[in-house]
Amino acid sequence: MPDFPKFVQINEEGPREGFQIEKGPISTERKVELIDALSETGLSQIQTVSFVNPARVPGWADAEEVARRFRRKPGVRYTVLWLNDKGFLRALKIDGLHLRGSISLTASEKFLQRNQQRTLKENFEAQHGMIELFKANGVPVERGGIMAAFGCNFQGEVPIPIVVDMVQQILDLGQQHGLTIKTVSLADTMAWATPESVKRVVGAVRNRFPDLTLSLHLHDTRGMGIANAYAGLEMGVASYDATVAGLGGCPFAAHKGAAGNVCTEDLVFMLHEMGIETGIDLDKLIECSLLAEEIVGHPLPGSLKMGGSLGALRAKLKAA
Amino acid sequence: MPDFPKFVQINEEGPREGFQIEKGPISTERKVELIDALSETGLSQIQTVSFVNPARVPGWADAEEVARRFRRKPGVRYTVLWLNDKGFLRALKIDGLHLRGSISLTASEKFLQRNQQRTLKENFEAQHGMIELFKANGVPVERGGIMAAFGCNFQGEVPIPIVVDMVQQILDLGQQHGLTIKTVSLADTMAWATPESVKRVVGAVRNRFPDLTLSLHLHDTRGMGIANAYAGLEMGVASYDATVAGLGGCPFAAHKGAAGNVCTEDLVFMLHEMGIETGIDLDKLIECSLLAEEIVGHPLPGSLKMGGSLGALRAKLKAA
Repeated sequence: MPDFPKFVQINEEGPREGFQIEKGPISTERKVELIDALSETGLSQIQTVSFVNPARVPGWADAEEVARRFRRKPGVRYTVLWLNDKGFLRALKIDGLHLRGSISLTASEKFLQRNQQRTLKENFEAQHGMIELFKANGVPVERGGIMAAFGCNFQGEVPIPIVVDMVQQILDLGQQHGLTIKTVSLADTMAWATPESVKRVVGAVRNRFPDLTLSLHLHDTRGMGIANAYAGLEMGVASYDATVAGLGGCPFAAHKGAAGNVCTEDLVFMLHEMGIETGIDLDKLIECSLLAEEIVGHPLPGSLKMGGSLGALRAKLKAA
Repeated sequence: MPDFPKFVQINEEGPREGFQIEKGPISTERKVELIDALSETGLSQIQTVSFVNPARVPGWADAEEVARRFRRKPGVRYTVLWLNDKGFLRALKIDGLHLRGSISLTASEKFLQRNQQRTLKENFEAQHGMIELFKANGVPVERGGIMAAFGCNFQGEVPIPIVVDMVQQILDLGQQHGLTIKTVSLADTMAWATPESVKRVVGAVRNRFPDLTLSLHLHDTRGMGIANAYAGLEMGVASYDATVAGLGGCPFAAHKGAAGNVCTEDLVFMLHEMGIETGIDLDKLIECSLLAEEIVGHPLPGSLKMGGSLGALRAKLKAA
C-alpha cells in the first residue's frame, strides 16, 4: 500500500468557480448564504469571489459586495481570485480576506492567450510586476501555479519537461525577488489528466523538486476527478482544490461541457473512508451541496448529495 | 508503476440496468434501438434484458419482445439477467442469446431478503437446483458472483473473510456438480466501495485464489466508480461491468440516489488514455450515450458525453 497522507487540506473553490460560470442571475444574498454555510463545515480555506472584468465575467460583477458581506468565521482563510493588478487592487480594499500572492504560469500559450490575452513571455514578464506589487502591499508570496499542466484543448498534449521547467521558472522568479516558493499548484484546467498522467507529472516534478509541496486542481469534465485525486494521494499529494457539488467550469475553455472541479463532498467521502482526516463535517458539507444546487436552480454533478454518506447510514444501522 | 492489463473486457449492462429502473414508459422499439446502436461500437458483450417479475420490474414487462427483436451482430455476446428458474426458462425460449449459468451468492443476508426474498441458506440451496437446471439445458456454468461484496445499506460493513469464504462456497458448489468455476464477479451493489477497499477485497480473494479470474461490478452512487475501477486495474482486474451514460440503479436498494454502474464511456476513456485496449470505438459509444439520454428523457450521469473524447479533439488539433 502506498504511504497516504494522514491529513488532506481541502481548498474549497465552489463559490468563486460556480458563480463565475452560472448563467444566473444569482443574488448577492444567496452567494453570501452559500459562503456562510460553507464556513460552518470545518473547511479551513474557502475561495469566495473573483475580482475579474465584469464585462467578461458578469457573474462576479458583485464581487466587492459579496466579499464585504460574508461572515468571517475565525480559523477560516477566505481567499479570492484575481488575474491581474487591477483585480488584486480591488481585493486589497476589502478587509478580512486572506490575500496571498501567487506566481501564475500557464503551460499552454494558446490557452493563455484566450484566458488572459498574453503570450508566454508577456505572462512571465507580468509576474515580476505582480510580485513587486504583492511585496509593496505586504502580501506574502509563497505559492506558484501552473495552469493547463496536463494538456490543452487548443494545443494538445503538454510535454512533462515543459511542466518541470515551469516549476523551475516559478522558483527562479521567486528567488530573483528574495522569496521562497513553498507550494506549487498543478492545474488540470481542461481535464486532460488521467490517474496515470497525474502520477507521471507529479512524479517528475517531485523527483526534481523533492522539498516542494504540491497541490492539485482537477477539473472533472471527463469524469476523472476523483480517480485523479486518488492517484495524487497515491503519490502523497496532500492538498486539493475542490468545489462543493462540483460547481463551476471554466468560461474560457470554449467547451460547453467543461465541468467544475472535483466535487468536494465526494472527495471528502473518499478521504474519510480511507481514514484520511480533513477536519470537515461531511454531512454538513452535503447540506451545503444541496443548498448550492437549490441556489443555481439546476442539478449539479456531485454524487454524494444524492447517494448519502456512509456515516449517516452506519449511525442509523447502529441505532436500529 | 503497477502491471496493468493490456486489454480490458467491458461487459455493457446499460440496457438491462437502465430500463429496469427508468420510470418510462419506454417503448420496446427504443429499447431495441439502443441495443442495436451499442452493437455497432465494438462492445463484445451486452447485457440486454431482464427476465424478472413484471409486477416488480414493470420496465422489463416486454423482455421477450425486446430479446426477440434486437439485431444479432456476429461476434457480440448478448447476455440476459434472471434471478430464478422462472426467469431462466423464459430466456431459454429465445434464440440467439448467450446464456451462461452463474452461481450467485450475496454477502448480506438482509439485502438478499429484500432483493430475492431468501435467506442465505435458502439462496445457497437454490443454487443446486439452478446448476442442475443449467446443466439439463446444456447451458455452461463457469462463473459465480457475489452481490453486496463491499458493504450493505441494510447490514453495514461486510467483513472480507465473509467474501473470501463465499468465493470458496462458489468453487465448492461448482465442484459438487463437476464444474470448474473460472470467473467470479464481485459486485459493489450498494456503492460502499472505495479504491482502498477494492484493493483490500480483491487482494484477499486473489491471495487465496490466485488462478481465479475476477470481474468487478461497481455502482457509482457515491461517485467512486471510476476511481474504484482504477484501483481494480492497479490490482490487475481485467473485466468490468459498466453501463453506457451511467444508466441504471438498483430498484431494491431502497435508496433514492442509487446510481447506475460506472459509466462505460468514461471508463473506456480512462482505459484508452492509459494505453489499455478494449476493442471499443469511444466516439461511437459516446453517440450511444447521447441516444440513451434522449431515450430516457432526462440527464444521465456520464461525463464524457458532455466533455467529449480527447481522440476527437486531438484529430481536430492535428488537422488545424
